[in-house]
Amino acid sequence: MTRPSIVSDEVIESRLVGLPGWRLENDKLHRNFEFDDFVNAFGFMAQIAIIAEKMDHHPEWSNVYNRVEVSLTTHDAGGLTELDFELATHMNRLAP
Amino acid sequence: MTRPSIVSDEVIESRLVGLPGWRLENDKLHRNFEFDDFVNAFGFMAQIAIIAEKMDHHPEWSNVYNRVEVSLTTHDAGGLTELDFELATHMNRLAP
Amino acid sequence: MTRPSIVSDEVIESRLVGLPGWRLENDKLHRNFEFDDFVNAFGFMAQIAIIAEKMDHHPEWSNVYNRVEVSLTTHDAGGLTELDFELATHMNRLAP
Amino acid sequence: MTRPSIVSDEVIESRLVGLPGWRLENDKLHRNFEFDDFVNAFGFMAQIAIIAEKMDHHPEWSNVYNRVEVSLTTHDAGGLTELDFELATHMNRLAP
Repeated sequence: MTRPSIVSDEVIESRLVGLPGWRLENDKLHRNFEFDDFVNAFGFMAQIAIIAEKMDHHPEWSNVYNRVEVSLTTHDAGGLTELDFELATHMNRLAP
Repeated sequence: MTRPSIVSDEVIESRLVGLPGWRLENDKLHRNFEFDDFVNAFGFMAQIAIIAEKMDHHPEWSNVYNRVEVSLTTHDAGGLTELDFELATHMNRLAP
Repeated sequence: MTRPSIVSDEVIESRLVGLPGWRLENDKLHRNFEFDDFVNAFGFMAQIAIIAEKMDHHPEWSNVYNRVEVSLTTHDAGGLTELDFELATHMNRLAP
Repeated sequence: MTRPSIVSDEVIESRLVGLPGWRLENDKLHRNFEFDDFVNAFGFMAQIAIIAEKMDHHPEWSNVYNRVEVSLTTHDAGGLTELDFELATHMNRLAP
């Protein structure tokens, strides 16, 4: 399986337009999610865990109660690739 | 902690009115849930797992891909109690 | 991606030897797992959910408190395939 | 339900002796867990999520692939309480 290569700054800019809530931070895609409570936050994490493993592309994420903070990058490519935008899109789809 | 006692048939009937999708089957509360896909089905199960353990009241449930089939009863009471209606209410709230 | 084809009865027999706890039931692989408590049972289910989605091969399974009952078959092949034995192997590896 | 009160430095010291891997960091209990892979890391998180909600005491935690980093404190008490040591004990019990 060929892994995606790094995308250009222009592509990053245009992709971010379609990803409400996400921004660049230290060259990673970053978003804070806030849920009603811990149950909803962890339900989201369980869904994303399944998707991430299937993509073989895992987030850096932290959780405190109803908040989930996510950073995405593609380590073996050394920057942002289509995988990051794909995972971010799944997250926006599954978050309320 | 006092555990709830069995509710009457009249109460069961009136509670079922407020619980779309649920019906009595073999004296248990029963509902089939259908989700978009496995990810959504399991996300739901993860949320309910957390709630069920907190209530110390666990469902009998089965899953195949996007379907989750649930039966609820209170074994140590020998029938339906408020715990079953409470858990069913959580499920209806968290299912799409 | 080519999906596995049905395996012969001889192969089934020989594979079952290496899968303690599993048996044939209604032409499906079947096993009952018992855990210490609900937390352990659901932790196992969460792990298998991730693996199953990655394999694009999902179990028929039910849970009541600390018990998880599993049936495996490959519906689109109309019987048992290597996918079922692979998933059963993951389950035996992750169950205590 | 009475919530636990802050424990003394002496108690913290003596409790840490029985909690391999944990140390004080910025007045919080801190430990890094490392698992075989993402599936094992997330299975652990699913178990702890259930326990944490039941305790009504949630961790600050982050995950990257097979690593889970945890910080524990009791915000409404303004420091470490028995709840933190109880949750840390559950984590050590469930981590391999």
